[in-house]
Amino acid sequence: MTSGGDSPGMNAAIRSVVRTCAYHNVECVGIYRGYEGMMEGDFKSMDARSVKDIINKGGTVLKSARSKEFRTSEGRAIAHQKLKEANIEALVVIGGDGTFNGGLVFNQEYNFPVIGIPGTIDNDIFGTTHTLGFDTALNTVVGCIDKIRDTASSHNRLFFVEVMGRDVGHIALNAGVGAGAEEILIPEENMGLERLLESLQRSKRSGKSSSIVVVAEGDKIGKNVFELKDYVEANLDEYDVRVSVLGHMQRGGSPSCFDRVLASRMGVKAVESLLEGKTNYMVGLINDKVTLTPLEQAVKGKSQIDRELLRVSEIMST
Amino acid sequence: MTSGGDSPGMNAAIRSVVRTCAYHNVECVGIYRGYEGMMEGDFKSMDARSVKDIINKGGTVLKSARSKEFRTSEGRAIAHQKLKEANIEALVVIGGDGTFNGGLVFNQEYNFPVIGIPGTIDNDIFGTTHTLGFDTALNTVVGCIDKIRDTASSHNRLFFVEVMGRDVGHIALNAGVGAGAEEILIPEENMGLERLLESLQRSKRSGKSSSIVVVAEGDKIGKNVFELKDYVEANLDEYDVRVSVLGHMQRGGSPSCFDRVLASRMGVKAVESLLEGKTNYMVGLINDKVTLTPLEQAVKGKSQIDRELLRVSEIMST
Amino acid sequence: MTSGGDSPGMNAAIRSVVRTCAYHNVECVGIYRGYEGMMEGDFKSMDARSVKDIINKGGTVLKSARSKEFRTSEGRAIAHQKLKEANIEALVVIGGDGTFNGGLVFNQEYNFPVIGIPGTIDNDIFGTTHTLGFDTALNTVVGCIDKIRDTASSHNRLFFVEVMGRDVGHIALNAGVGAGAEEILIPEENMGLERLLESLQRSKRSGKSSSIVVVAEGDKIGKNVFELKDYVEANLDEYDVRVSVLGHMQRGGSPSCFDRVLASRMGVKAVESLLEGKTNYMVGLINDKVTLTPLEQAVKGKSQIDRELLRVSEIMST
Amino acid sequence: MTSGGDSPGMNAAIRSVVRTCAYHNVECVGIYRGYEGMMEGDFKSMDARSVKDIINKGGTVLKSARSKEFRTSEGRAIAHQKLKEANIEALVVIGGDGTFNGGLVFNQEYNFPVIGIPGTIDNDIFGTTHTLGFDTALNTVVGCIDKIRDTASSHNRLFFVEVMGRDVGHIALNAGVGAGAEEILIPEENMGLERLLESLQRSKRSGKSSSIVVVAEGDKIGKNVFELKDYVEANLDEYDVRVSVLGHMQRGGSPSCFDRVLASRMGVKAVESLLEGKTNYMVGLINDKVTLTPLEQAVKGKSQIDRELLRVSEIMST
Repeated sequence: MTSGGDSPGMNAAIRSVVRTCAYHNVECVGIYRGYEGMMEGDFKSMDARSVKDIINKGGTVLKSARSKEFRTSEGRAIAHQKLKEANIEALVVIGGDGTFNGGLVFNQEYNFPVIGIPGTIDNDIFGTTHTLGFDTALNTVVGCIDKIRDTASSHNRLFFVEVMGRDVGHIALNAGVGAGAEEILIPEENMGLERLLESLQRSKRSGKSSSIVVVAEGDKIGKNVFELKDYVEANLDEYDVRVSVLGHMQRGGSPSCFDRVLASRMGVKAVESLLEGKTNYMVGLINDKVTLTPLEQAVKGKSQIDRELLRVSEIMST
Repeated sequence: MTSGGDSPGMNAAIRSVVRTCAYHNVECVGIYRGYEGMMEGDFKSMDARSVKDIINKGGTVLKSARSKEFRTSEGRAIAHQKLKEANIEALVVIGGDGTFNGGLVFNQEYNFPVIGIPGTIDNDIFGTTHTLGFDTALNTVVGCIDKIRDTASSHNRLFFVEVMGRDVGHIALNAGVGAGAEEILIPEENMGLERLLESLQRSKRSGKSSSIVVVAEGDKIGKNVFELKDYVEANLDEYDVRVSVLGHMQRGGSPSCFDRVLASRMGVKAVESLLEGKTNYMVGLINDKVTLTPLEQAVKGKSQIDRELLRVSEIMST
Repeated sequence: MTSGGDSPGMNAAIRSVVRTCAYHNVECVGIYRGYEGMMEGDFKSMDARSVKDIINKGGTVLKSARSKEFRTSEGRAIAHQKLKEANIEALVVIGGDGTFNGGLVFNQEYNFPVIGIPGTIDNDIFGTTHTLGFDTALNTVVGCIDKIRDTASSHNRLFFVEVMGRDVGHIALNAGVGAGAEEILIPEENMGLERLLESLQRSKRSGKSSSIVVVAEGDKIGKNVFELKDYVEANLDEYDVRVSVLGHMQRGGSPSCFDRVLASRMGVKAVESLLEGKTNYMVGLINDKVTLTPLEQAVKGKSQIDRELLRVSEIMST
Repeated sequence: MTSGGDSPGMNAAIRSVVRTCAYHNVECVGIYRGYEGMMEGDFKSMDARSVKDIINKGGTVLKSARSKEFRTSEGRAIAHQKLKEANIEALVVIGGDGTFNGGLVFNQEYNFPVIGIPGTIDNDIFGTTHTLGFDTALNTVVGCIDKIRDTASSHNRLFFVEVMGRDVGHIALNAGVGAGAEEILIPEENMGLERLLESLQRSKRSGKSSSIVVVAEGDKIGKNVFELKDYVEANLDEYDVRVSVLGHMQRGGSPSCFDRVLASRMGVKAVESLLEGKTNYMVGLINDKVTLTPLEQAVKGKSQIDRELLRVSEIMST
């Protein structure tokens, strides 16, 4: 089952779960449209061949949805009934915080075995250094900014590029360093408008003729990317400022090799952990090893930004 | 010289102009930042080796700019003086309408030989079926919409995707057909809001669970893409509507093979036409042949949308 | 039906044929694995929704095959029987020379309406300036050579890159110009080993530190790419020579926007021509218009290399 | 200085070293063509602006070479003399085993401070989980195999795809899992020809119509990829077998975000370690942290294949 926002690598994870079941001669059923489909009994039996040629596809063949009804105990009762009718005995849920929360509550009420696989481009899950889709999204963002830089350099322009990340700056920070951005604005740090102006002025003086500023949606300064543009234009008239909001394309695309391999590893671990009788865990990557973290910690914990990388970013914009 | 908005393929054209000069033992000088640099005498002598490894780069190594001063006769007098001082005897100008207009006026005043090469992603130049950068931009747009469709399909969503094209719908129409868009809104046709709603409803009934509508910046309905979203959400509550504005990345990126080959052909034709004593022409592609069109016609004529393709688009969204 | 070597854009053409049928309320049946599947009655009814999400996929959802049996009159008799049983009244065949030949013979024997769509990366069909997949293959090849050039430049190496094209040099010539190759060896021109050596020596003297030579499979010199390497190494010891054979990846990949649009246009024309009672034509692109050419001419005619482009190539390697 | 085989991310590492020097007000000199250029005094002073716009470029702007002369003590004496004359006081060497060995010997003879950064696509260096270029090469390989699969699926073919890795199977194993290969042949494991045949037969019986086998150059079975093809064709006549050798394109291309970020982090660590008086270390990534490993260990140690991933690979080909 996939739920919440989709991310590249979800299909690779579905494939892995299905094939690991086949390998261990366990029957596997796909649940469509997350908890919504679970309550409707929108199930489909899946064997090794039914996940053919999906490892390289973005999105999720099981579709995804957000469900309000599942947050009610009535909704969950219906879902439980449907699962029982279909002889489903354990769940692998692929998604983010909300998805795991749903699984956790469901487990507490019905003692139903659940293992989570973190699938979201935001990388905002505690208990894993990488969520599925994060690496792909970084490559997508960096590819877009490379294109924007072509035109920025040709015209000596300043670009504010907004990337996803309402609460966490992982995408902005990593893609910003990867794209050689002059400044990176993230939710975790309040750079302040004054310092931004100073930095841009210093950048100009040091001989840079064009600049890219990467801004996370939830940037701490609290101004959106268009307000930032207006502010800078009002205060730095030597700059011709433009804005680009990358938007939903960040969620799509063929997954990177990293995300496909990670998804394959996580799917194996998820199924084999359930077969060993484990429940209420999330499969994560810690120190390059696929590791279990209690779902409760995964949901409550907070993923931290890499402080060292912030410093690298500052040095790189010398 | 490159001027106006930059486009992928400009570097390939610069390389071609420089190498064709070298081939014919003609000295070649690059002018930086368009007419602005011309007035400042920002020139650089270029030989075959100075355009090494640029054929695959987006943007323009000669930089680009828009110049107000060159629109005055004083500005043009200074430019003419600078060209004379540098022993420059003829101009190849790469850009769009504005660039050609500048060249035309300059020629009329100083009888200075000028040949234009159409470089703009918008494909809005009369006298050529393809401008440099158009093909690359189409691939960029289609690549982005492919990614957006991944997430649209996973969530059963309707996306409005805004692409470049303030006055002409070439990008929207071609990329819309290429991306399999359900509807395409362009400046040349007023589809009307009512018909859009009907079409989306029909699309829903016919079993489509997600839809992409491609909207040119200058869409004739006259609402911007966010207003369209609000309108559709207010009138079709079964749709979860999102907006994506592709923006400046459409101007950048490594040029497609088509644009590189076209640029190479146009550069040869431009230089050899000047050597044959021709002036005031634009090099264009007509019926797959590199052909000269009088600059004046190129500036005054209007590039037409392909009506047959509009019809194809309608059939494809069956 | 798709037959022969597959090419990017075949799926887009299938989609277009199916949707144009749906648009005109004509029933449409897909034939799997070309003439092979035709003789086995491997058919599937297709409606507008069954070609969902395939426009951007390489390969062909109908699979392809080469059939020996169909070349016998017994084989064709069986095929005709199967078509009759399935109430199929006309054929759209997507493929190359061999595919069209099959269709032509079949038509002569059974007076069965046939329209061809040229799908092959080689661009070796008379009656169209572009076959489906050619543009995509060019971008694939140029992308690969761009990567090879990175390492060639870093090491001052000479690379021979073999691309597809046993009988025609379209891919080699266009991709060679697009990739900025120093030399291009094609089946249509015998450059001679002596001239190749001279050219490489001149290239070295002119200050080039690395070089790419693009070689079509069927290069006229008559040595394969490994023999060329040995010859050059034996005669030019200043070069460190490497070989890269691009191979089958040239046939795959998501089609370019150009190929998707062309496929969409051709599919419409093919179906509507059949509905108008036309038969034995190939749909092609001539002077940017979708045009019919008698199948017999398409099969017998020979697609010509662009001589002007050969000259451009020579000038570019100055 | 970059030396040995080039890899994507080397330019990003050069940029990082140069900018970190600028940040700490340390003078920085680039050495061209590795140890070869060192002995020739082919140096160039570099400041923060001289590494502009290279973070996204493949290859190395400092060029690379392999030097025989530097392996002699006379060669190293000359190199030392040149470094002294240029007032160079410490070295950052970017490359693989051979590069580090050179640096180590040089340090032992002249007590010259050296820090290594692992740059090679093969990932065969002890003391780091990822070398620069490995992640990019994986994405390149997976992208190529995705294309090959398009055509393999369309024709029900078996493809042997040879990837780089003479002594280690990292690329084959990771890209093989990422590309969904049916079998993966690596130098570390002798699968045996018999087991390969059985596996392919089982694969066919289980309903797979096409298959990809990824083969590392140094595969343990000891047959090259063309011999494997012949063997399988001779023993499994139901398969139409093809070969694709990916070759040098694996070394090139714009680096992935991962490689750019890693290069930026490693460059900072390398320079700051030298400034702290450290020498004879390699900067590596261990447990996601940038860490120092003694160069001697890096050279002597052996990078191990991930056994867990071998098992995942087997499960995935169910």
